[in-house]
Amino acid sequence: MSHHHPENDPKYIGLNVNAGIEKPDAVNAESVKRFLKRGRRQILSPDEYFNGIISGNISILSQAVTLIESNKPEHQKVAQEIIIKCLPRAGKSIRLGITGVPGAGKSTFIESLGKLITGSGGKLAVLAIDPSSERSKGSILGDKTRMEELSSDPNAYIRPSPSAGSLGGVARKTREIIVLCEAAGFGTIFIETVGVGQSETVVHSMVDFFLLLQIAGAGDELQGIKRGIMEMADTIVINKADGDNYEKAQLAAAQFRSALHLFPPTGSGWSPPVMTCSALENTGVQQIWNTVNEYVTLTKENNFFQSRRNDQAKYWMYETINETLRNNFYHNHQVRGRLPHYEKLVLTNGMSSFIAAHELLESYFKSVGNE
Amino acid sequence: MSHHHPENDPKYIGLNVNAGIEKPDAVNAESVKRFLKRGRRQILSPDEYFNGIISGNISILSQAVTLIESNKPEHQKVAQEIIIKCLPRAGKSIRLGITGVPGAGKSTFIESLGKLITGSGGKLAVLAIDPSSERSKGSILGDKTRMEELSSDPNAYIRPSPSAGSLGGVARKTREIIVLCEAAGFGTIFIETVGVGQSETVVHSMVDFFLLLQIAGAGDELQGIKRGIMEMADTIVINKADGDNYEKAQLAAAQFRSALHLFPPTGSGWSPPVMTCSALENTGVQQIWNTVNEYVTLTKENNFFQSRRNDQAKYWMYETINETLRNNFYHNHQVRGRLPHYEKLVLTNGMSSFIAAHELLESYFKSVGNE
Repeated sequence: MSHHHPENDPKYIGLNVNAGIEKPDAVNAESVKRFLKRGRRQILSPDEYFNGIISGNISILSQAVTLIESNKPEHQKVAQEIIIKCLPRAGKSIRLGITGVPGAGKSTFIESLGKLITGSGGKLAVLAIDPSSERSKGSILGDKTRMEELSSDPNAYIRPSPSAGSLGGVARKTREIIVLCEAAGFGTIFIETVGVGQSETVVHSMVDFFLLLQIAGAGDELQGIKRGIMEMADTIVINKADGDNYEKAQLAAAQFRSALHLFPPTGSGWSPPVMTCSALENTGVQQIWNTVNEYVTLTKENNFFQSRRNDQAKYWMYETINETLRNNFYHNHQVRGRLPHYEKLVLTNGMSSFIAAHELLESYFKSVGNE
Repeated sequence: MSHHHPENDPKYIGLNVNAGIEKPDAVNAESVKRFLKRGRRQILSPDEYFNGIISGNISILSQAVTLIESNKPEHQKVAQEIIIKCLPRAGKSIRLGITGVPGAGKSTFIESLGKLITGSGGKLAVLAIDPSSERSKGSILGDKTRMEELSSDPNAYIRPSPSAGSLGGVARKTREIIVLCEAAGFGTIFIETVGVGQSETVVHSMVDFFLLLQIAGAGDELQGIKRGIMEMADTIVINKADGDNYEKAQLAAAQFRSALHLFPPTGSGWSPPVMTCSALENTGVQQIWNTVNEYVTLTKENNFFQSRRNDQAKYWMYETINETLRNNFYHNHQVRGRLPHYEKLVLTNGMSSFIAAHELLESYFKSVGNE
């Protein structure tokens, strides 16, 4: 392993950037592959990464994140060592999940709220979980280029979604990236996601506060939002409350308020408020940040904050176990060969779901025992 | 195996009852145990059960259900053979899930709607999934005694929740009981549950239509209802719309209507209506039954009905597999010994959730391979 500092090495320039400014093409799995193909295999020692991270070196943080995102065993090994070193320094940030349909103005909102945080001296990391990465290997925060001011803000670190692997894998990597960002001194972490599919549930399971961004519309503003998300929100924000849209936004807020009223109380003792803002005109954004801080104060006092984090840590341990058990089963050669046949039997009432399951399990455990 | 008809055998009297009238103490796991302890081990052949069931013999149906509920391997073996025989004759009923907080008047509602069905010549089976069975081995439909008329109705078969085992196990058994009831010619099947915990999700996963029963209250009528249930409902019914409560019920219905309006559309092309009724006075109940039938007509036309059933059959196959994989893991000797240690490490930031999971998985697969 090389012990020189990579940010001084021209070989790393394609992979890393300074002060949190990253080019979209430099940060996804493709870049890892390119990095490897070009023979840029020099990796620092875990201690060097750790020291770089805790001293706030964004370039080294970025490289460590790239190792987390890589699926190469040798990268994973170093990544896990870095994470173990960082863990005792992690956990001190406020983790804020932000979800909303495309068109709700997430990028502008993140830029507006983000600049408010960095403007008062806070350090902000913006991560993302992209449900489309599962299918298309594409990347959101394609609209990252719209966060122009935040992108060039030395107190902000913007990182798109890890693009490789299952949603579970992406979630795990994002959780690990949070650890590194916290060790690097980022006091606020945004995790952005589009409110479709399962990704918002995943984000909800790793944040302290879950913010649902909405806009007023013709009654069908929720078309793209999955059922159940509204009930996970710690606050609903109606964005674009400006100009001709101001009154409509207030009306939408009132509607959401009366809907939330029908929901059962949350476990936190917190009643999710419905707020309006204009991220474009920077109105209402300070109030939203105050609300987040009120929530943190309340839930730290009543211990819900820590208990939610504990539940999440346990959840992710169990979820990793369960996902691995499932993967081992469904990727098993015996199972893969038989599954279509059994599924067909079940669908044609030729066999009960239960018997089909047990015959498949039997062949699986036989083959695992014989390995 | 005995080949005489057990309903004529005095040895069976403690276990079975005629015409669907069952004593609460005769139908749970305790009765199975007693049945076994008293040496009443005579079981019919699968063919005899099958023939009895399809000829509509309620007594034989009840015994077969008791075999499904039993965890004895020899009972399970016969039960599975009966189910396989019944499967080709299953699937022709309308499966209706009914959930609501205690106090919403579920029993009265089931009695009122049920009598409407049997009154027009339909055969109705009322099953239940009881979340408390997991913890206390108690049984709901304790208020079954309140369904006085339905209990003595020869066209109705009322069976409390299987009380043994995990929620997953109870769910599986209930699905199997549905198969038997359908083979016995029951054209409508109610599955009742209290809207707390996970049981309503389980019920939702095995019915064609999911009905949420509510009452008007002081704004906190949803206190007992888990977040997310409202979005699963195919209709919301405000019960007890009678006397002084009539206006309040209409107001509550209007509130629910405007809340549902904010939800995204369902996959079925169906807009869940909010209705009011008085089960006590039998008003509005016919309209609810009409609504169920409209739903069935719509979703059979647009194929959502069959596609929901197919999804459910697959879901239960995969759920059985996943639950078994999890059980094998968490009951593994190696895992049980180490789990508390790893959980503690994860909670104190001594280890990442991911590493803890993988170390536990490693010791599990080692021990499975060595078995």
